[in-house]
Amino acid sequence: MSGLLFVLSGPSGVGKSTIRKEVMKICQGLRYSVSCTTRSPRANEVEGVDYYFVDLATFEAMRDQGEFVEWAKVHGNYYGTPRRPLEAWWQEGFDVILEIDVQGAKQVKAVFPQGIFVFIAPPSLRILEERLRGRHSDLEDDILLRMTNAHLEMQSIRDYNYLVVNDVLEKAVDQFRAIIVAERCRIRE
Amino acid sequence: MSGLLFVLSGPSGVGKSTIRKEVMKICQGLRYSVSCTTRSPRANEVEGVDYYFVDLATFEAMRDQGEFVEWAKVHGNYYGTPRRPLEAWWQEGFDVILEIDVQGAKQVKAVFPQGIFVFIAPPSLRILEERLRGRHSDLEDDILLRMTNAHLEMQSIRDYNYLVVNDVLEKAVDQFRAIIVAERCRIRE
Repeated sequence: MSGLLFVLSGPSGVGKSTIRKEVMKICQGLRYSVSCTTRSPRANEVEGVDYYFVDLATFEAMRDQGEFVEWAKVHGNYYGTPRRPLEAWWQEGFDVILEIDVQGAKQVKAVFPQGIFVFIAPPSLRILEERLRGRHSDLEDDILLRMTNAHLEMQSIRDYNYLVVNDVLEKAVDQFRAIIVAERCRIRE
Repeated sequence: MSGLLFVLSGPSGVGKSTIRKEVMKICQGLRYSVSCTTRSPRANEVEGVDYYFVDLATFEAMRDQGEFVEWAKVHGNYYGTPRRPLEAWWQEGFDVILEIDVQGAKQVKAVFPQGIFVFIAPPSLRILEERLRGRHSDLEDDILLRMTNAHLEMQSIRDYNYLVVNDVLEKAVDQFRAIIVAERCRIRE
């Protein structure tokens, strides 16, 4: 692998997408790996930009043909990271950002142990719950499920290389950008 | 050690001081370890800010009392890093920057293997020589000695954690700052 792999993970609702999008505006040479999912698009989510929205049969066919670096069932929906775009981008000299749940990040680490794993954490679980409720797109059961998972996911922080606490957005964006700039300067064995 | 230790090193004339000073203007929570030296002050160098300028007898007394983390004879002059300020700053929650030659950095690594070692390199040795001549403060013999050492020092890059090429100053400053911000986010064992 010639380019770098940045894996952005953390609990649902923590602000991974927002941080990633802001960093891609101010940092060159990055490509974002768009995941496939069987869940329905939220308002303002765009096909091919936020996700590839596929039906269950399509997802299962891709999975069975080994086209995913990782895949997982999260909150009742399937998510997967297509392998081919990553390899193409590295060939072209880009660094790649994945944005995935904690379960998926573990699988990616097994395949790409040299990846750079960044955990985005909320300032507190109480604030995470407020943010999830503020999104107004999830049912009460969904929110409770996400909170239960968040509690478990926070225990995986030690498996990551970096921790960014998303308290003030500008600071979190600066920190993720700094991680990218620094890792590009890192001397590897 | 509670705070971090950033060791900035690289060939003489590469711009270590300039980069360090610019980063300290835009990055909070840092303290710069002022070295002791037996060499004479250059124009615009200030006692206690750039160096503690001491005579040989004083330097040898401090060295013999174990007051240096590292010391070295470089280009015929002695340089040493006092130990006590580092420990005081870490206690107070600051991160510390050392700015030392490659020989001194090796000694520091032996004492503080958990330090973060940053090598500042010139875009090329030819450009380094132009910069040394542009400084107008060194004799021809000094310049030749520094160039010979630079050639050797470049072979130590693999012992460092990060490489910053000082081509465009703003870029080098941004990279060193990013290394500090990122290392503060790093999850340690």
